[in-house]
Formats: sequence, C-alpha cells, structure tokens
Amino acid sequence: MTSGRAFRFAVNVTPKPGILDPQGRAVEGSLGHLGIDGVSGVRVGRRVELTVDAPTEGEARAVVDSLASELLSNPLIEAYAVELLGAGSATTSRAKVRA
Amino acid sequence: MTSGRAFRFAVNVTPKPGILDPQGRAVEGSLGHLGIDGVSGVRVGRRVELTVDAPTEGEARAVVDSLASELLSNPLIEAYAVELLGAGSATTSRAKVRA
Repeated sequence: MTSGRAFRFAVNVTPKPGILDPQGRAVEGSLGHLGIDGVSGVRVGRRVELTVDAPTEGEARAVVDSLASELLSNPLIEAYAVELLGAGSATTSRAKVRA
Repeated sequence: MTSGRAFRFAVNVTPKPGILDPQGRAVEGSLGHLGIDGVSGVRVGRRVELTVDAPTEGEARAVVDSLASELLSNPLIEAYAVELLGAGSATTSRAKVRA
C-alpha cells in the first residue's frame, strides 16, 4: 500500500526500575523448583516485532516510535527501546513475515 | 551467593511462524484508529531480562538456556533467542539491577 522499503523492527517494552513486576517475581520464585541458582534481577516485559513500509528508515522509525508510545507501552510504568532488525524491499520482507 | 561475574541477559520469546498470535492481530486492528498506515506482520512476544552469577560467560549462558527452554517459553509454540546485555563484577551489576 505505502510505497518504499520495508523495515523490520522490534520494540522492547520493560517495566521501569522501581515498578513492581509480579511476573518477574514469579519467575524468581520458580527458580528453586528447577534447581537453578545465581539468578537475580528478573524483569518480564513484552517484545513486539513489526514491519513498517516507509520511504526512509527515519520515517519508519517515527511510525514505530508513535506506535510504541501510544499503543504498545504505558509510559507511566514502562520504558521502551526500538531495535532495527533488518531492511529490504517491501515484497521480500512481507514474504518472510508470512512464512 | 555464587562466586564469579554477573552477566545480564535478555531472553526474547516470540510465537513461532504460523502460530496464531491474537495479541499481534489486536495491535494490527488498532492501527486504523491511530491513523497509522503501512504496518504489517505484528508479532507479540515476551522479553525477560535477568542477571546470572557464574564463573564464565559459557556457564552463564547454559543457565539462561535451561531457564529459557524450561520456564520462560513453551517450545511447542514459541521460539526464544538469548542476548547478552553486559558483563561486570557481581557487586556492580546487582546494584544496577536494584536501582
């Protein structure tokens, strides 16, 4: 639909430092049952991978940033980081995503 | 408790290709309401960050691998990738995690 290249991004959403993370606590609590020692500071967040069609990487990043802050994270309690996974022609990347 | 260095890892857990991803579909469905165009192939997974105390990076990775496959992911429907975020002395990294 949009002309341009396809950029594949990952958005990593993690609970901000100091914010309670019940899932992380649950994982730490389960370590004993698995006999795993020496693990600490477990934080559980989300990872969203998506493809953006845009003329330039900058424009694609702008789309991802707006998505990440408005839809994918709660800025009050979560931080996010955007990671570029790859860039290619729109056709190639779409094929990969569907595979 | 364990002697050695502290290694900070991230485990990225994503739905395997072909596996239904209702959260990803929900995000794609919301894009229209936000007026965002040209986004496709949305996949929603988890990201777990944790610190492992171990004598070597190899031993730390072994711990993370066993955690990732036994506790953090469902190997039937999810794939995981391990990412080393940083390494330091046990004391420094623990302080960072608590901050």
